[in-house]
Amino acid sequence: MTIATRGILTLSCPDRPGIVASVSGFLFQQDCNIAESAQFEDPTSRRFFLRTVFQPGAGSPSFDDLRAGFAAIAKRHDMTWSIADAGSRLRTMILVSKFDHCLADLLYRHRIGQLPVEITAIVSNHPREALSLTDFGGHPFHHLPVTAATKAEQEAKLWALVQETGTELVVLARYMQVLSADLSRKLSGRAINIHHSFLPGFKGAKPYHQAFERGVKLIGATAHYVTDDLDEGPIIEQAVERVDHNRMPDDLVAIGRDIETIVLARAVRWHAERRILLNGTKTVVFR
Amino acid sequence: MTIATRGILTLSCPDRPGIVASVSGFLFQQDCNIAESAQFEDPTSRRFFLRTVFQPGAGSPSFDDLRAGFAAIAKRHDMTWSIADAGSRLRTMILVSKFDHCLADLLYRHRIGQLPVEITAIVSNHPREALSLTDFGGHPFHHLPVTAATKAEQEAKLWALVQETGTELVVLARYMQVLSADLSRKLSGRAINIHHSFLPGFKGAKPYHQAFERGVKLIGATAHYVTDDLDEGPIIEQAVERVDHNRMPDDLVAIGRDIETIVLARAVRWHAERRILLNGTKTVVFR
Amino acid sequence: MTIATRGILTLSCPDRPGIVASVSGFLFQQDCNIAESAQFEDPTSRRFFLRTVFQPGAGSPSFDDLRAGFAAIAKRHDMTWSIADAGSRLRTMILVSKFDHCLADLLYRHRIGQLPVEITAIVSNHPREALSLTDFGGHPFHHLPVTAATKAEQEAKLWALVQETGTELVVLARYMQVLSADLSRKLSGRAINIHHSFLPGFKGAKPYHQAFERGVKLIGATAHYVTDDLDEGPIIEQAVERVDHNRMPDDLVAIGRDIETIVLARAVRWHAERRILLNGTKTVVFR
Amino acid sequence: MTIATRGILTLSCPDRPGIVASVSGFLFQQDCNIAESAQFEDPTSRRFFLRTVFQPGAGSPSFDDLRAGFAAIAKRHDMTWSIADAGSRLRTMILVSKFDHCLADLLYRHRIGQLPVEITAIVSNHPREALSLTDFGGHPFHHLPVTAATKAEQEAKLWALVQETGTELVVLARYMQVLSADLSRKLSGRAINIHHSFLPGFKGAKPYHQAFERGVKLIGATAHYVTDDLDEGPIIEQAVERVDHNRMPDDLVAIGRDIETIVLARAVRWHAERRILLNGTKTVVFR
Repeated sequence: MTIATRGILTLSCPDRPGIVASVSGFLFQQDCNIAESAQFEDPTSRRFFLRTVFQPGAGSPSFDDLRAGFAAIAKRHDMTWSIADAGSRLRTMILVSKFDHCLADLLYRHRIGQLPVEITAIVSNHPREALSLTDFGGHPFHHLPVTAATKAEQEAKLWALVQETGTELVVLARYMQVLSADLSRKLSGRAINIHHSFLPGFKGAKPYHQAFERGVKLIGATAHYVTDDLDEGPIIEQAVERVDHNRMPDDLVAIGRDIETIVLARAVRWHAERRILLNGTKTVVFR
Repeated sequence: MTIATRGILTLSCPDRPGIVASVSGFLFQQDCNIAESAQFEDPTSRRFFLRTVFQPGAGSPSFDDLRAGFAAIAKRHDMTWSIADAGSRLRTMILVSKFDHCLADLLYRHRIGQLPVEITAIVSNHPREALSLTDFGGHPFHHLPVTAATKAEQEAKLWALVQETGTELVVLARYMQVLSADLSRKLSGRAINIHHSFLPGFKGAKPYHQAFERGVKLIGATAHYVTDDLDEGPIIEQAVERVDHNRMPDDLVAIGRDIETIVLARAVRWHAERRILLNGTKTVVFR
Repeated sequence: MTIATRGILTLSCPDRPGIVASVSGFLFQQDCNIAESAQFEDPTSRRFFLRTVFQPGAGSPSFDDLRAGFAAIAKRHDMTWSIADAGSRLRTMILVSKFDHCLADLLYRHRIGQLPVEITAIVSNHPREALSLTDFGGHPFHHLPVTAATKAEQEAKLWALVQETGTELVVLARYMQVLSADLSRKLSGRAINIHHSFLPGFKGAKPYHQAFERGVKLIGATAHYVTDDLDEGPIIEQAVERVDHNRMPDDLVAIGRDIETIVLARAVRWHAERRILLNGTKTVVFR
Repeated sequence: MTIATRGILTLSCPDRPGIVASVSGFLFQQDCNIAESAQFEDPTSRRFFLRTVFQPGAGSPSFDDLRAGFAAIAKRHDMTWSIADAGSRLRTMILVSKFDHCLADLLYRHRIGQLPVEITAIVSNHPREALSLTDFGGHPFHHLPVTAATKAEQEAKLWALVQETGTELVVLARYMQVLSADLSRKLSGRAINIHHSFLPGFKGAKPYHQAFERGVKLIGATAHYVTDDLDEGPIIEQAVERVDHNRMPDDLVAIGRDIETIVLARAVRWHAERRILLNGTKTVVFR
């Protein structure tokens, strides 16, 4: 039986001799040809990280059987691992406030086939009319307004929606709401936030205004996994743009929009392509 | 009488109508032709900033007489101002530890005529032999070792040296010593430090190690004026370089060297060319 | 009479003493306060360039009267000049192929108030359905399919549309058609093209494929004014992004999209804000 | 017998199943632990590229025996390959004109242990005194002045020097002389030039002046292997810096110096660390 689409094997484990030989030997025996591979040995944590894209051949078993066969190797090396079908699209929910530039950008990329995800829902604490975007590409829109009083209740609805829709990734695309510690933990490793500063500088509210007050010469944006420690989650990607004394806070906000959209789009795509592996409080990103 | 070299007029004052007309009218009357001019109106502080490079003509008075003539306008508009001879070279002292890459870079730029300063002294808390550089270009070298016990005494010597040599600018080129509040104040607005992080992130000691621990995806360097509030002085220039999970702290140190040298060299040159005006805790830089 | 909106004075002329004094004196007499000003003296062409944003005051005349008053100064200094009402929005037409990422980006920026233009028409050589975008924001869409046989005829229609709609700026947002020499001349200085390479490298067709073949390590995009010499018009803005040996031509196309949208959006905004002055075959851009 | 230092295996060959399994299996059997590995499958040329850094263990043979053992695998897969001792330093000759900023930079990096090469000679077509640098770090300096009449003769001396000194890499650090086709071929794949433009733009003489005339908004530098086709050799690294209309040719030269030094230093280090593999007219660079 031939499997048309490629597979993506990702793993991390304690570093010791023979891992690559085991893994590549296994894939070779299963008639899977390695199309792309990247690895990293962390000399500080002594962990090994691998991402391999392979093309199953005529003699390859199904992905399920590959997984079953790989389990023994994984166990021997104490691996955290997964084998994904590269043809499947990650089920992704986008949370947004009325600042919808990242949403508009993600939807456009999705529309032209540049974002390998399935959009399960768009959720906003603002009503549809409050957004500048009008064409949501037919994706379901949910208005879940959050106030201090309703936060717990609305998060429960959000979580229910995540479960009902089989959402695998939640993107906080300038959502402007802090998730509770509980929800952050439930979404651990599968919620990506864009923070509009070059972290660790200017955490919290109004980072562009903070940047203006400090007189920095570059402003930036940071995509990171959400944790219950605000703006402290593992960093996925960052970028900056030069500014000068001429730029007022509104200018920084405008310049920042472009950085935010590009940084968040990269992070979402890399996550969907399973290029990001967690390494404690940091990330390994196989670009 | 013709003055061969150009003049540089810099000023800041409360913003109000007629300043440019007054200044340009004055220069025109003194037979000075504007060769280059940049201005900035700060809408938050309501202050006006100007830097004008002018070419004195056959009918122009001396720089001293220009200053005397300009004083009336300056007074009327409550200006902080100066008129400098662009041909004079700023008397500059360089402080360094055994990490001498910025020193090597500044000396090379000076040698090929790219840094319009006069080097008055090189001062290090390490002996000459501890530096990797061996050719100091004939500039006087002073070894002023600093310990907790001798700090006050050595700073007194440093200050005496600044005065004796007529030093106008002190450059902390990876000096790795924190100046006392007293000396910081004495050198206010004329001491430039290079900090090896993208401020305000990673203040204090071992910033590359801090950056490594946090897992940032860009590292940077910041040139700023020294104040008695550590790493909080007005920022002059910043730059960053991309890093990834492969980079260990030593790699960050190596990558950072290039950023530090370029950022500090820019800051020193801009200061020497009188392109930097202070605006409260921030800078106006006319590049 | 008070004029609420600001004015923008731009001019270029042979460089000689007294221009700034004349202009700033004139504005001061007309009760116009300079809010922002930038100038450039080109030592090679000996021309002077100025852009001044001014706030008319209680004693200021209308823009028409300001223009009438300024004409005498302009004549004396042989100026190419204009005084524009900063509150008016430049009438702008967007030409597009089925590659509509720049169009999508420009429309979004326009929608959130970040692009100070009035969109007069969207014109494509492809039918509306061929574009991935579906929401054209209510702006008129014209389908003008171009073939070798119909090119002259369709350009005539395009030119008629430019005239009927009072279009002041034509943006070739990945239009993928070369304008005729005749139309290029008619639109001289008011048609902006985005070329998907870092000019002067890779002129002409399929620049990303050319870049791939050459093995460059950075790819780029260039916004420039259209002239009848293909990809040789005055450059307005350029940007690049790093690529490596992993990137296939399709990857370059995808990475390039982001560079193109940002570079073109800047060029259009700067033109609309009258920040670009022509200097022979080059541009002066007061950012 | 234990080998203290690491080994670096690099190879390229036609891509087919089982290569990684063969190579990693071989290293595992020889008690060599993979410390770092990067690979690339070129879908256009159907070639496979690998660079592996390995740590020999207690049971590992000598590097010579490893090479002997690997030869059979290499033959089977039709590999171009090498196994190098990471502890050995590449014997490197630096050619320079009187523009010695790249030389100064390379020597400083070498001095602080950041450039893993052994400098065999510094060769210039200018006498020692014509350079601004005075401290050559004790490395032998050869003055080989080149004129049209003496070019063949001086190239013969240069080639003799390369052979006598066992030079493995020749760096044209702003040498400003075009090597003959014959010498270019002799040094094929082991001579690196820095060209002071962003190739393929502005080939040949005075690239910064060409860039100025064209009015580009970014200038750059390119490190590439020397071939007998001027400025057309495989590109190793490129970088750019933003410029604007203010910058005159001399400014571009000054800004370009910093780009050139950084780009060339990277290329030399990567070559010395065996990170660069040739892929036809392009390079694979495992950064």
